[in-house]
Amino acid sequence: MQQRLSIIALGVCDLKKSRKFYEDLGWQTATQEGAENIVAFNLQSFVLTLYPIEKLAEEVDMPIKITTPSFTLAYNVASEAEVDATIEEARNIGAKIVKPPQKVFWGGYSSYFSDPDGYLWEVAFNPFSQPEPDGAFKWV
Amino acid sequence: MQQRLSIIALGVCDLKKSRKFYEDLGWQTATQEGAENIVAFNLQSFVLTLYPIEKLAEEVDMPIKITTPSFTLAYNVASEAEVDATIEEARNIGAKIVKPPQKVFWGGYSSYFSDPDGYLWEVAFNPFSQPEPDGAFKWV
Repeated sequence: MQQRLSIIALGVCDLKKSRKFYEDLGWQTATQEGAENIVAFNLQSFVLTLYPIEKLAEEVDMPIKITTPSFTLAYNVASEAEVDATIEEARNIGAKIVKPPQKVFWGGYSSYFSDPDGYLWEVAFNPFSQPEPDGAFKWV
Repeated sequence: MQQRLSIIALGVCDLKKSRKFYEDLGWQTATQEGAENIVAFNLQSFVLTLYPIEKLAEEVDMPIKITTPSFTLAYNVASEAEVDATIEEARNIGAKIVKPPQKVFWGGYSSYFSDPDGYLWEVAFNPFSQPEPDGAFKWV
């Protein structure tokens, strides 16, 4: 199995509401306007989709509920000021700020907000590793 | 906020066991041998990390348990035969096959396995959209 991944599909309660949230953050959907059942965003080299949770449960034939997620998604930026600005942007579109921007033990500066389903987004500045101009990020 | 993502961090119960699972699938860690608290894999343009669930809960200051996940990760391949072969590979290293390979309603062919914490991986062939030679995948 190659070291790659094609899609992250987040189960959501209200597709229209979740779609609006990410569009308000400035993202553009790849799916057509009329698509009722799925919303896709092309990220650098893979796809993030929003998918109704009941469809996702049906797909894998398991009872699935949305609870506090046991994973996080991180958006790394180039400075502490950019963390602050991104969190303000999220606050302005109604995101819940779960953890205000602060210095963290590993030497960086980070904050968390959550999306309408409670999915956790970290916005972080890591002084040791920053995103490339094209948005790619690597662990070094 | 740019349309990108830097890290997916999966909370795990047993870091050594989870690390071995992904290494057995053929992945190579970017973290050093001695790293006790986190394991990172560089994917195409971002990072997937494994992080002890109790540390993740501490990080966001929330009580977090691992339950049946409300999201899936997909690994798209170039043919039905490659779905079968990848699932065999996963089965051989002890992955639970959650849904055997089968034709699916959207016209593709797909199967699911789960990792040691129950995180769901879809292995899929989509006749309408296949990964680029460099592993990138796009919604079209």
